[in-house]
Amino acid sequence: MLAYQLIERKRNGGRIEPGEWRELIASYLRDEVTDAQMAALLMAVYFRGLDGDETAALTETMLRSGASLDLSHIESPRLDKHSTGGVGDKVSLILAPLIASLGAAVPMMSGRGLGHTGGTLDKLESIPGFRTRLSLSEVRSQIGRIGCALIGQSEEIAPADRRLYALRDSTATVESIPLIAASIMSKKFAEGLTGLVLDVKRGSGAFMPEVERGLELAQTMVDLGRSHGLPVVALLTAMDRPLGRACGNALELEEAINALHGDGPPDLMRVTYALGAELLVLGGLAVGRDAARRAMEVAISSGKAADKFREVIEAQGGDPAVVDDSSLLPQASCCELYFAPRPGFVATVDPRQVGFGVIELGGGRTRPGDPVDHSVGFVIAARPGDLVREGEPLATVMARDPAGIEAGRSALERAIVIGDEADYPIPLISHRVTHEGATPYEASDTPVELAAQP
Amino acid sequence: MLAYQLIERKRNGGRIEPGEWRELIASYLRDEVTDAQMAALLMAVYFRGLDGDETAALTETMLRSGASLDLSHIESPRLDKHSTGGVGDKVSLILAPLIASLGAAVPMMSGRGLGHTGGTLDKLESIPGFRTRLSLSEVRSQIGRIGCALIGQSEEIAPADRRLYALRDSTATVESIPLIAASIMSKKFAEGLTGLVLDVKRGSGAFMPEVERGLELAQTMVDLGRSHGLPVVALLTAMDRPLGRACGNALELEEAINALHGDGPPDLMRVTYALGAELLVLGGLAVGRDAARRAMEVAISSGKAADKFREVIEAQGGDPAVVDDSSLLPQASCCELYFAPRPGFVATVDPRQVGFGVIELGGGRTRPGDPVDHSVGFVIAARPGDLVREGEPLATVMARDPAGIEAGRSALERAIVIGDEADYPIPLISHRVTHEGATPYEASDTPVELAAQP
Repeated sequence: MLAYQLIERKRNGGRIEPGEWRELIASYLRDEVTDAQMAALLMAVYFRGLDGDETAALTETMLRSGASLDLSHIESPRLDKHSTGGVGDKVSLILAPLIASLGAAVPMMSGRGLGHTGGTLDKLESIPGFRTRLSLSEVRSQIGRIGCALIGQSEEIAPADRRLYALRDSTATVESIPLIAASIMSKKFAEGLTGLVLDVKRGSGAFMPEVERGLELAQTMVDLGRSHGLPVVALLTAMDRPLGRACGNALELEEAINALHGDGPPDLMRVTYALGAELLVLGGLAVGRDAARRAMEVAISSGKAADKFREVIEAQGGDPAVVDDSSLLPQASCCELYFAPRPGFVATVDPRQVGFGVIELGGGRTRPGDPVDHSVGFVIAARPGDLVREGEPLATVMARDPAGIEAGRSALERAIVIGDEADYPIPLISHRVTHEGATPYEASDTPVELAAQP
Repeated sequence: MLAYQLIERKRNGGRIEPGEWRELIASYLRDEVTDAQMAALLMAVYFRGLDGDETAALTETMLRSGASLDLSHIESPRLDKHSTGGVGDKVSLILAPLIASLGAAVPMMSGRGLGHTGGTLDKLESIPGFRTRLSLSEVRSQIGRIGCALIGQSEEIAPADRRLYALRDSTATVESIPLIAASIMSKKFAEGLTGLVLDVKRGSGAFMPEVERGLELAQTMVDLGRSHGLPVVALLTAMDRPLGRACGNALELEEAINALHGDGPPDLMRVTYALGAELLVLGGLAVGRDAARRAMEVAISSGKAADKFREVIEAQGGDPAVVDDSSLLPQASCCELYFAPRPGFVATVDPRQVGFGVIELGGGRTRPGDPVDHSVGFVIAARPGDLVREGEPLATVMARDPAGIEAGRSALERAIVIGDEADYPIPLISHRVTHEGATPYEASDTPVELAAQP
């Protein structure tokens, strides 16, 4: 009757104590608590929430349900970034080798595409031969050797989270802030980090579009980090349009490589540098965010960051030549420009339409395990606010056949809305969240230091 | 993905259309919708509720998931009563033969004890040889022959309700008014009735203690009846104390038999007559409730009601002699009086403590399928508001051994609270609910008729 009483208590707005969470999850993994009971509890949590202690207890319980990466032999700061998911978001592919080239150890575990959003693993698998499944001991030794590994979530890590997530995914209980926070953080805690930065997306293409909910999620995760002893900073970034230009696996990988060569689109670079600066400061690898940014610029211009990516690709069985020759990546057989159907201001580049468009082209999954065509996707030059002429090229569709080109064109027609007046998109990076709370984001930390002087 | 979308929509406060309910329940019975999905949906319903159309659609779907009793060959009005469950509530045992003796057909399907409340089936099984499991065709022919059958719920009836109820029972989703109403009414609709009266309990011993919730439940069920084409009236009755004096299976049967012989306790008779009057009026067997009451009094004083009970017992394999000789019922081997520990006014006779006390004595179940000792229980003479002297006998404990006597005494100590001031218990019958709404209960309908004259 334990499970029944806890469901009833949560349903009535009460709290579940840490020891009760431990017992409940352990009983669930032993199949003594049924999926139905857990689903009812999760729905009650959706309505009633969890307080900070409950969220922490659930997170720690899921963490301890499995193995952790033991990186205690690594003396460098162990840093990682997590994003709540977006379209065109290839920041991880740039950031991991970039900060590893500056002395960080980066045990980055990523996921696959989910809903309309892309997944870092799928993008990495565009690289011929690249292995994303490494054992924890392989990861451990690769980090020791070259300071970076880009892998999928190991089955050994947080099995309770995996089971709960699958259950939530079938019972419409995903969209609960404490459950999302506990799921993300239990896996990040298992990486044995000393610093973590979170990219919490907001806007129409985010899982949690409203800024208030994004801030709440960010604060919940930052607070979970604090109670676990892990310093965490979160940035709220815009997902009312795709990040960068490329959307689609190999296309995004190519854009990330361009960025590592110093040729990334400005919005992508701003977000990458902002997240990287937080990490380098958290890891003690830079004194202040401005210094961190300069260090990253040098790592890119000197070629160190691109070198690190070659090392990682080689270590994981991929062909490092892709870093210098993008024609080695999967190429779509059909390619067509998309032109502005009318003059005006670009009002919207809807990330959901773009993301679902990539799936329609075959570049994403409608169910787990579906094969993915890495070559297809879009490169979208148009940004919200741009003034465009009729017939001006706004985007390119990459598809495997003419039917795909048609589908892609039609997705772009839905995605790119041209209006008569210039509209202001939401700020690219709007808030910075630490354990002290949320503040409007300031790219540079210099003015703050100056303002603090008498 | 159908189930997922319906869960999500209900979670977000939307409505599920009739066709969707049908498809959902059908898929659930085919195991295409999982228990976990259904549990999540039920918890979402707990929080978001169901509107009248949704509740009706769910009820009809559950009804049509199984067989119905075909009583179309019966010309008499087909009437039944349902109670939401109480302690000492033996009304069904009196009412069924009573109104059958007045010309009604009564296909009464009852349940077993649940929680602290007793069950009509368990009480009937005090009668040596009595069979509560009849096939639908046996019921059909018995109703045709003698106008009354007292049986358990057939497995053929509303299997969807049975599966959903078991799921709700393990996932803390029982206490939802539309789900309770749909569950009760789907089974009552399957009886092929032409009139139904509901006894909705309120007060500390009711499943839904608050009067507002009781009224809402009553109105929901009355409205369901209306949309199904079945006239339903509900009365709200007091369950802040046991009904009548006897609590325990054979003891309650004996008290019901006494009532059929004209010797029932006043509160029990008032509730029985009130419910019976509604039924006789609904069935067109009496013009007005006052006339109905007089007809029932005559049926009892003439012996017709007791005769009908003998017929039913005989038809279902029991020994009809119990109606005239209660010593043929199971007798407890130990029996002890319980005396007032102090002088004062009886403040409380707590039905939950009494109900759980009967279970402790062995007269109820802590899990389904447990054997039941029909002989044990309490006869409680004390009523809330009574002025008592120290040492005055308040109750009798019937147990199978001295340890049982001890347990029974201790249950009575918890149940019967004596205070210094007279307190007023809630009215025995407080509200009458029809499709026109709820009104304060008036026992007689004569003043209303007079008031309607110019």
